[in-house]
Parts: sequence; structure tokens; C-alpha cells
Amino acid sequence: MSFFRHEQALVETDDIGEGTRVWAFTHVMSGAKVGRDCNIGEHCFIEKGAVLGDGVTIKNHVAVWAGVTVEDGAFIGPHASLTNDLRPRSRHAGWTLRETRIGQGVTIGANATLLCGIEIGPFAFVGAGAVVTASVPAHTLVYGNPARPRGFVCRCAEPIAFRNNIAVCAGCNRRYHTDGQGQIHEDHHAE
Amino acid sequence: MSFFRHEQALVETDDIGEGTRVWAFTHVMSGAKVGRDCNIGEHCFIEKGAVLGDGVTIKNHVAVWAGVTVEDGAFIGPHASLTNDLRPRSRHAGWTLRETRIGQGVTIGANATLLCGIEIGPFAFVGAGAVVTASVPAHTLVYGNPARPRGFVCRCAEPIAFRNNIAVCAGCNRRYHTDGQGQIHEDHHAE
Amino acid sequence: MSFFRHEQALVETDDIGEGTRVWAFTHVMSGAKVGRDCNIGEHCFIEKGAVLGDGVTIKNHVAVWAGVTVEDGAFIGPHASLTNDLRPRSRHAGWTLRETRIGQGVTIGANATLLCGIEIGPFAFVGAGAVVTASVPAHTLVYGNPARPRGFVCRCAEPIAFRNNIAVCAGCNRRYHTDGQGQIHEDHHAE
Repeated sequence: MSFFRHEQALVETDDIGEGTRVWAFTHVMSGAKVGRDCNIGEHCFIEKGAVLGDGVTIKNHVAVWAGVTVEDGAFIGPHASLTNDLRPRSRHAGWTLRETRIGQGVTIGANATLLCGIEIGPFAFVGAGAVVTASVPAHTLVYGNPARPRGFVCRCAEPIAFRNNIAVCAGCNRRYHTDGQGQIHEDHHAE
Repeated sequence: MSFFRHEQALVETDDIGEGTRVWAFTHVMSGAKVGRDCNIGEHCFIEKGAVLGDGVTIKNHVAVWAGVTVEDGAFIGPHASLTNDLRPRSRHAGWTLRETRIGQGVTIGANATLLCGIEIGPFAFVGAGAVVTASVPAHTLVYGNPARPRGFVCRCAEPIAFRNNIAVCAGCNRRYHTDGQGQIHEDHHAE
Repeated sequence: MSFFRHEQALVETDDIGEGTRVWAFTHVMSGAKVGRDCNIGEHCFIEKGAVLGDGVTIKNHVAVWAGVTVEDGAFIGPHASLTNDLRPRSRHAGWTLRETRIGQGVTIGANATLLCGIEIGPFAFVGAGAVVTASVPAHTLVYGNPARPRGFVCRCAEPIAFRNNIAVCAGCNRRYHTDGQGQIHEDHHAE
């Protein structure tokens, strides 16, 4: 067994990567898929059908349901609340699962709520306590209830501001440009 | 024992109905009352003095306190936060318990917060992340912080709209009318 | 051992005061500091580096992180979400811990969210579901997302209103005055 399981954790899946750690009072179900080098805090629940990439951090008190995909390097803050049913009723056998995709390197802030059927773009940042009712583009900061776009963030999470379609992060010097569709791209050739 | 208890659950009440399931790391106290065919997810707490009807679904990370009654067929979403004290202070021996009634077939969305001393009417729908500070009438949709009425929902959870005091659900064809006091009634005689 | 530990709790610290109770599925780490006569509910996590004073109540589903200090007699409601990193990203080794101080006798309402690097003044009251993004002065009531000042509360949690810089609590007769800087002081010499 190349991953760490706290003795008070339940881990029933075999599909769990090397270096991953699962802490106390957390349950990873059979049928869940978990990548390498993840850190899954206490009091979490990873349901059958949930998918975590590599290097994902799940803080305490989070449930990742069937239909939720968390891509490499994403961070899910404590008490963040994910969903997979837009109109839940008790004992509704015919409910429709709606998927959620949390992109590479995303941050979901503490106690944020995400409706389902949405996609959080790479390196987006959902502020603490936000209620997210729609998809969020890459590198976009959202917060509030309902969450609204409020700015942009670097891969390193510092805020960035665009002028003439160009932004340079004051924290780490990464450079970005926006294309004709308003999409944000990191300039990997920056010196 | 006619109910299911995960081996990592603590169930101390005898007042628990047939077919009910209680999942891992959940504690149902002595003195709690739980009906039949309920499904109580992981990391939940059902306190002495809490009452759950039949067919209730409690998703993960929910605490149901003394003074909270959850009627038949209600759904409490993950991380929904219930209360029973309007002005809590630590070590305040003389606090006043205020009751909350969650009516038949209600949905409480993920991570919603309910102040106490209120009643959520039958088949009402509290949106995810809502902060509910007042009672909610039957079949009413509320969301936001603070939660405000935003529309109406069918027993099946689809939105319905009234015209000339009549609504027909596009999803399931159930029919409703409003009376002179603006109360919503389902027409059970509809063919 | 002069404190109470539920048999399903994990308590690894020795720095825990007499009369404190720790309930099921809660983990108090080595290196956490917990005072006397505290009550720590179920499904909680008290991290190494967290500090709780005497007579603190922590309700269910709360995580108190390194860098968070909870002073004597404070109440942290269920699902309240604390933080210690303003810009979390997964696997960010060089992150900056920001401290939070929750003052004497404070109430943090159910499911409230606190950003870090802030101070909640003595006897302040954070309403249920609030998202607190800035420090809160003593005896001040805040709620909403973002949380804004909405009034004042007595030590006993009843609302108080100032007239000519003087307030008397209708609930308990405690008296307060505001000084030239708008700070609230309790008049301990009141007869």
C-alpha cells in the first residue's frame, strides 16, 4: 500500500495513487478514483463515481459526490459543499445526475457552495462563502451570493489586472494575455 | 433490528423505524425519534429531542438538534445548518430553545442555513447556500442571503407559475390553485 | 485525566484543561492548546497550533486551524468555517499563515465563514451564514455576505441601542457607553 490511511479512515477503493494521504473519520468509497499525491482531510466523503486527479487537496468536512471531477492540483476548502442534483427531493428514484468539473489548479474557498452542471475553469478562484450558480472561466475570481466575477487571478493565486490585453503577476512575474474571445492564456514563453 | 447501521455509526435510540439506514461516522442519540425508510448520510448528528418522520433523507454533514422536527419525505442537503438558539453564548445555562418545523416533502438545499423559530411549509424549496431568517410558505422557492421568495415549485420540485390562480406543472402535470389568501393547494382531483 | 473524552474521540494533546468535554468523531491534535470547561462537539478538528481559552463552546462540524485563537467564553456555532490562508492553492509549500483572533465572549453564528487575518472583538456577534471579510469591533452585530455592521449586542447577546452614547440592555440591565473613538465600554460600576 503506497498511500497513507489514518487508522480511523475508511478506504475501500483500490484506485488510489501513490503518496496520497487520507485522514481520520474520512471515507473513500469503493468505485471512487483518486490520483497521486492527494491530501484528503478529516471528516470527508469521496463517493463512488467521484474522480480526483493528482495533487488535489481536499480540506476537512467536504463531500465529493458521484459526477464530480476534480482535476490535477485543485484545492477544495473546508466545508465547501458540492452537489449533483439540481432539484433534490427525498426518495426520488428518477433524479438526474448533473456533473461538475473543477478544473486544474482551481481554488474553491472555505464554505463555498457549488450548484451542479457547471465547470470551474483552470486556476479560477471561488471566494470563501460564495454560492456559485454558473460556470466560471479560467483564472477568474468570483465571490458573493450569488457569486459574480470580480477580477482575475494568477496561477499563484495573486490578483492580476489586464491592460491592453496583457497582465503580469506582481507576485511571480507570470505573464498572461487575453484573446479575441476574452479568454485568458498564460504566456509560457515569457522570459 | 430492522434498520441498517453502518458499523462505524453510533445509534443509541430504540425509536427508529424499519428500513432506515444510518451511515458511517453518524451519531443518533438516545431520545431522538426517527421514522421508517429514512436515509441518514455520513458525519451526521441527530440529537436527543430531534424528530424525523418517515422517508426523510438527511445528506452528509448535517446536525439535527433538539427542537427540530423534520416531517415525512423531507430532504436536507449536505452541510445544511440548523439551529435552535437565536442568541447563543457559551455556557449560557438559561438559553431559550426555539423550535423549527421542516414540513412534508420540503427540500433544504446544500449548505443552507436556517435560523430557528420558523416553519418551512410543505414542498417548499430552500436553495443551496440560502440563509433563511423567516418562515417559508408551502411550495415556495427561496434563495439568497437573506433568503427571499423567488417563485413556486411543484411537489416534484419543478418550477410552476400561476396564471389566474392556476398552475400546471410542465414536468408531471400536477395542478395547483391559489385561494383568496394566496395559499397554494394541490388539486388532487385533477385527471 | 480530568477532562471527558468520548470513546470515539481522538485527543492527542496533553494541554487540555479540567472539565473540558470532547465528543464523538472529534480530533484534537497534539500541539493544540485547550482551556478548562470547554465543550467541543462532534465532528470537530482542533489543529496543532490552535488555541482555545477557558469556557469555550465549539459546536459540531467546526475545524479550528493553526493560527486561530479563541478566547475565553467564545461560542463557535455549527459548521462555522475558519481559515488561515487568504490565497490557498494545492501543494503550495510557501503559503503564508494569517492569524485570526476570536475575542472573549464572542458568538460566531451557525455556518458563518471567516476570512483570516482578522479580529472579532469581545462579545461581538456574527450572524448565522455571514461571510466575514474584515475585523469586527467589540459588541458589534454583523451579518450578510459580505457581513456588515447592523447594530450592537450586550454581553448577554440581546440587542442594545445607544442614545447620547449610553445604552442599557433591556434583558439584563447592563449599561454601556461609547467613548470619543466610538468604542463600546461596559460600565462595571453600574448599580
